[in-house]
Amino acid sequence: MSLVYGIVGTGAIGGFYGGKLAENGKEVHFLLHSDYEFVKKNGLQVDSCDGSFHLTDVNAYRSSEDMPKCDVVFVCLKTIRNKMLAEILPPIVHRDALVVMIQNGIGVEAELHQMLPGLNIAAGLAFICSGKVGPGHIQHQCYGKLTIAPYNINVEGGTQDIVTEVLSDLNASGVEAVASEYNLARWKKAVWNIPFNGMTVVLNTQTDRLLLNPVTEKLIYDLMMETIHAANHVNPQCPIDESFADAMIRSTKVMTPYSPSMKLDFDFRRPMEIEYIYSRPIREAAEAGFKMEKVEMLEAELKFIEAGYRNVEK
Amino acid sequence: MSLVYGIVGTGAIGGFYGGKLAENGKEVHFLLHSDYEFVKKNGLQVDSCDGSFHLTDVNAYRSSEDMPKCDVVFVCLKTIRNKMLAEILPPIVHRDALVVMIQNGIGVEAELHQMLPGLNIAAGLAFICSGKVGPGHIQHQCYGKLTIAPYNINVEGGTQDIVTEVLSDLNASGVEAVASEYNLARWKKAVWNIPFNGMTVVLNTQTDRLLLNPVTEKLIYDLMMETIHAANHVNPQCPIDESFADAMIRSTKVMTPYSPSMKLDFDFRRPMEIEYIYSRPIREAAEAGFKMEKVEMLEAELKFIEAGYRNVEK
Repeated sequence: MSLVYGIVGTGAIGGFYGGKLAENGKEVHFLLHSDYEFVKKNGLQVDSCDGSFHLTDVNAYRSSEDMPKCDVVFVCLKTIRNKMLAEILPPIVHRDALVVMIQNGIGVEAELHQMLPGLNIAAGLAFICSGKVGPGHIQHQCYGKLTIAPYNINVEGGTQDIVTEVLSDLNASGVEAVASEYNLARWKKAVWNIPFNGMTVVLNTQTDRLLLNPVTEKLIYDLMMETIHAANHVNPQCPIDESFADAMIRSTKVMTPYSPSMKLDFDFRRPMEIEYIYSRPIREAAEAGFKMEKVEMLEAELKFIEAGYRNVEK
Repeated sequence: MSLVYGIVGTGAIGGFYGGKLAENGKEVHFLLHSDYEFVKKNGLQVDSCDGSFHLTDVNAYRSSEDMPKCDVVFVCLKTIRNKMLAEILPPIVHRDALVVMIQNGIGVEAELHQMLPGLNIAAGLAFICSGKVGPGHIQHQCYGKLTIAPYNINVEGGTQDIVTEVLSDLNASGVEAVASEYNLARWKKAVWNIPFNGMTVVLNTQTDRLLLNPVTEKLIYDLMMETIHAANHVNPQCPIDESFADAMIRSTKVMTPYSPSMKLDFDFRRPMEIEYIYSRPIREAAEAGFKMEKVEMLEAELKFIEAGYRNVEK
């Protein structure tokens, strides 16, 4: 029996991964918000470096109560909206379903687990440059790898088997997908997210410029090292090697100039994901006995900006 | 015999303190740059909360070579120009003269001492809100205390006696002036300068807003504590008490909203004094075994902005 997929949040991430699965013939149900009418009528357009495609007759929904039960749900909302998951998820998950949290930051799985204790949960780490450029219109610029890391693998229901099947479906649909250890996966993503998301906002710039200037390249490196040290305090049994910072800097240098999601949120005056990208890792590290000095400062700067205190430059 | 004063740099600081001494009948010689013609012709106007005054027939000079030898020289240049002191000072100082460096930051006296080894040097710490609002036109908003801290007091020539006389001249001219231990005075000033100068630039704001938002108030406090710990590593025999941070925050809260000098430099696209306000204290602390984590980050952000990499906000 083929897995039935549900996509919660059909934007740059959900539209892309759900779109790829649907394009490959999988049964995919999309929950939409502002784009519902448009997608219902016009379908979903994915412009992609790997080959563009258009989906007509999309299974589009305005409310999760109208959706069928799914085997796998990709949660691709901004974390700002995670409180809504307590209402969104129950109608669409059956007892053995797997919820994959394709979101940024630290702590989203623990929070969901607390909210809906019976759920099988995995982290989804998307290494992708994509954006929503119009209603039902996704632009996928490059990359696309998805790492799936089971959060509560020991629950009844065999999460591990379903993860293997999801990986297989994704790979068959042209998405490179791999499994990973949970904490390692989440924190490795944080090593990139923490420096680049915040610094592009505070310094109103893009990834390339931060690495062109040797002073900020050093700062990015220091922020990465601080994140690696935090990770290794939180998760000592599966440590991240310090060389990972160099590797991340090298690979970012060859990327096209990029605005991380928080920079786009800032540019379009949307709320920023400060809580999960900054506050939670800082708290988890502190509880494990490590103080993230520089990351703390970045968090404070972002909160000041988010609160609207920063003047617009002349 | 009355002391003869020379003012190197007749701006917000030099124009005010030199102006007060001249207004009180002291012999004061002013070195000017862009305002020379204007001041020669129109004199110097000081609008002050303590009583405004106008000086006519100012002893104004375009070059220090035209000035007489002075007993006391107040250096009120921006630190950016300190390299020029090797040429400016020798014509106007005699063997027993005292040079008072009324500048921001750490390390200016040591550098001048290396440049001109025979010189008697003191630090001047100005606790003042004032600005140059037009050619030969100083606006003094509030405060005004000047702390003088001898740097090389053991040299032949009796710096200590002359310091006492300068303090007496200043007090007689309506300027509150006191003596202090050198390292303590410089670093205490840094406890205020380091957080407020840089953060108002990075977050494009003023002192009041940084303290209105509890998140940045905490950050300002943390930056002050980091500076106090650095100071106490550099100068353990004369430590700053941690309560000084609370006192500085309390007194800044009752100040009118203020743009520190670095913020004004930034607003008017002039070079910022990053070297002496940030890089030198970071280096001195590191040499004494203390790493200024957050201040390092602020330095990097400022250098990025100074280099013109930050986009102007839409």
